[in-house]
Amino acid sequence: MKQNADMLSALRRIVGQQHFLTDPESLRHYGCDRCDLFEPSPVAVVRPGTTDEVRAIVLLANEHRQALVPSGGRTGLSGGATASRGEVVVSLERMKRILDCSAPDGTIRCQAGVVTAQLQEQASRMGLYYPVDYAATGASQIGGNIATNAGGNRVIRYGMTRNWVAALQVVSGDGQVLELGRGLIKDNSGYNLMDLFIGSEGTLGFITEATMRLAPAPAEATVMVLGLDRLEYLLNVLGVFRAAVTLNAFEFFTESALKRVVERHRLQRPFADRCPVYALIEFEGDSERDIEAALAAYEQTRASGWVREGTISQSREQARSLWRLRDDISDTLAQWTPYKNDLSVPISAVPDFLADIEAYVAEHYPGFEVLSYGHIGDGNVHLNILKPEGMATEAFKAHCDQASEGIFELLKRYRGSISAEHGVGLLKKPYLRYTRSEAETALMRTIRKVLDPHGIMNPGKIFD
Amino acid sequence: MKQNADMLSALRRIVGQQHFLTDPESLRHYGCDRCDLFEPSPVAVVRPGTTDEVRAIVLLANEHRQALVPSGGRTGLSGGATASRGEVVVSLERMKRILDCSAPDGTIRCQAGVVTAQLQEQASRMGLYYPVDYAATGASQIGGNIATNAGGNRVIRYGMTRNWVAALQVVSGDGQVLELGRGLIKDNSGYNLMDLFIGSEGTLGFITEATMRLAPAPAEATVMVLGLDRLEYLLNVLGVFRAAVTLNAFEFFTESALKRVVERHRLQRPFADRCPVYALIEFEGDSERDIEAALAAYEQTRASGWVREGTISQSREQARSLWRLRDDISDTLAQWTPYKNDLSVPISAVPDFLADIEAYVAEHYPGFEVLSYGHIGDGNVHLNILKPEGMATEAFKAHCDQASEGIFELLKRYRGSISAEHGVGLLKKPYLRYTRSEAETALMRTIRKVLDPHGIMNPGKIFD
Repeated sequence: MKQNADMLSALRRIVGQQHFLTDPESLRHYGCDRCDLFEPSPVAVVRPGTTDEVRAIVLLANEHRQALVPSGGRTGLSGGATASRGEVVVSLERMKRILDCSAPDGTIRCQAGVVTAQLQEQASRMGLYYPVDYAATGASQIGGNIATNAGGNRVIRYGMTRNWVAALQVVSGDGQVLELGRGLIKDNSGYNLMDLFIGSEGTLGFITEATMRLAPAPAEATVMVLGLDRLEYLLNVLGVFRAAVTLNAFEFFTESALKRVVERHRLQRPFADRCPVYALIEFEGDSERDIEAALAAYEQTRASGWVREGTISQSREQARSLWRLRDDISDTLAQWTPYKNDLSVPISAVPDFLADIEAYVAEHYPGFEVLSYGHIGDGNVHLNILKPEGMATEAFKAHCDQASEGIFELLKRYRGSISAEHGVGLLKKPYLRYTRSEAETALMRTIRKVLDPHGIMNPGKIFD
Repeated sequence: MKQNADMLSALRRIVGQQHFLTDPESLRHYGCDRCDLFEPSPVAVVRPGTTDEVRAIVLLANEHRQALVPSGGRTGLSGGATASRGEVVVSLERMKRILDCSAPDGTIRCQAGVVTAQLQEQASRMGLYYPVDYAATGASQIGGNIATNAGGNRVIRYGMTRNWVAALQVVSGDGQVLELGRGLIKDNSGYNLMDLFIGSEGTLGFITEATMRLAPAPAEATVMVLGLDRLEYLLNVLGVFRAAVTLNAFEFFTESALKRVVERHRLQRPFADRCPVYALIEFEGDSERDIEAALAAYEQTRASGWVREGTISQSREQARSLWRLRDDISDTLAQWTPYKNDLSVPISAVPDFLADIEAYVAEHYPGFEVLSYGHIGDGNVHLNILKPEGMATEAFKAHCDQASEGIFELLKRYRGSISAEHGVGLLKKPYLRYTRSEAETALMRTIRKVLDPHGIMNPGKIFD
């Protein structure tokens, strides 16, 4: 305990009294992300203001073998930012300066604590566009986006966060400040170390600065919501629209998700008809020609019997309202403490995979409500099991863990991923073997050991 | 020598007599790539037919501490595939099967020895497009493309090879067969090990299979060649065209390059006027509307005094002819044993950097002819120093090595890369420190040690 007290006062000296927090509310607040299946119990929270302070914290933690949890906007869903074993939470939220903007190069260099929406706004002021977008961008931070390789709604058009990282400054687990990548379009000078940090969930070091690439500002977009009778039709509809328009997004959700969102947020239904499944389509353009192309595609899908009903946005405001039907789902479901699975399979395998899942759950878990939605255009399904009222969280989680094994066995047959975009964190750690081989996991462990020899960086996340 | 003889006969047993080559012509042929500044001297060449054979070769090499050089189409320009120290060359050319094509997923899985042009043709038969393209695609192999993260002419639109790799099968330096990536659009399940192999120049293991992504087939393209009075105008012209059309490529070359290509290949000049600098622009589309937009941009650049003269392709045939003016440069220059520097800087720094280079060479190397061309839209300049007639290769190389130090000092100020797309190989190894920090290089060494503990994989390449 003496050693612990020494370590804590050294930490306090590094960041200053004001940014060293141990009150129960702060410990609770900073101790978990949006996966509330784990009890937060950090020993302290520190909020460094500079890369030097981050480095000093890492060196101290190495000396004392003190576990650290890097902390951004904590909007993650897999417990990757949870501190449930006496860790010190290191929040990057004070490091939120935009350092450099270059329109000719199409880049913004910023600190890790910059909120995603702030980056999007800065890009927009430059006449450019930061295309990684999802419901939580108002709270998530760019460092966290990179550490988890955030995906979201426009991956079908723009890809994941990885595509938009031009350079990183990191403090590795052994306390080195590394500048990885140079913000260049082309650089073939040795191994790509930068991509190793992208998606490493804070287990290799801290991301302290990033140079992000920007896309040209897109044209105004139009949104459609379509009602379908069967999940299997989704891919047919995707095929028709992909050929007709430039897709920014192709999302889906079920009636049981829509019903809850509409009730909770007092939103309007897209149309009176209730359909088992809905597709939300965003495409680039709002000219007469664009709309005509989309409506022709719509008529084609109706004539084929794949789509029953539909609506199209007539204004930016309407487009936003339609998006809320999709974007508010995750937040709406929070009250049911949902057990989330974030799965992906090859696009061609989606219909068979979804049918298998449905059959499996109906057979093995008849009492549970399962709700699916997600980025179907990327082969990515968010499968949510809702906690029955009155069931204890622990018991619920145990049930779901068991269900997951069955689901992942199915997934494995389709060569899918146990985590399409949410990351592994604590929640998916037991299932990593369904996606990564033993040899790969051993290699990951060895690489971790190289960059973090004393295992202080977010231990227990991804793998043990 | 006994041990060596044992090793060689064991190798022969693995691949079969027919695919075990030691005749001087084969040793010469397989012992170097298109950088002819190093003398080839491999001890043998083997041509395995399966991943199992590759693995057996790696295990044997580990046992005997025998250096291996992975070998594809050997179109590299940095000596990355050179065997000049008694290595065994392992050619993947027999492993050229296309294994799997999926149009809905937009992927082709193939063996590493598939020639790039073959992949492009297969994609085209599927109604899709493999967009990495450069002069040597008729000879280069997909494994080599990946090992060197090949770039080329359409990076401005499509990015490097890295963007198009969905999954890899590799045999690591310690003889493990690893399946990296799953061909999914989204997969956030732990560290990205795949990108570590992309661009590692054969120093971590063999790439034996790859799943490549395909793009939608692009519309017909149109090509323009413009004549400029000054290099500095290139970026202004790029800005105007970028805003007006969808650029597939934005290349440049100088009159001294054009002159040589036209003479050598008996090509027609794009127009009568001789200009110091030319831009080659390819944009998507050939409709009246597309052409109008491009011509308006052309008029704007002329009115601004940036462009003196220009021509536009009226047919696919003409577009191809104009491309030859650019694509045939590298081949044309080969007779002067050019010393190649393949540099990149941020786009915004290109004009200042080029002016600095010009001044430096004029001052320090007045006797040498320096010729630049390249992918200016990516900030990538190929700087070629031509060997004066009668000068010995060794002496020439020594001179150029010295010049490189000065050029790289300049480059460092602009935070550029010593190798934009050609890789480090043997040729750029002495200059790695200008782009990568000591800490990064140390980390690369450690990672190499993890995957190739006995240092058998292409030793001496990238770093010692």
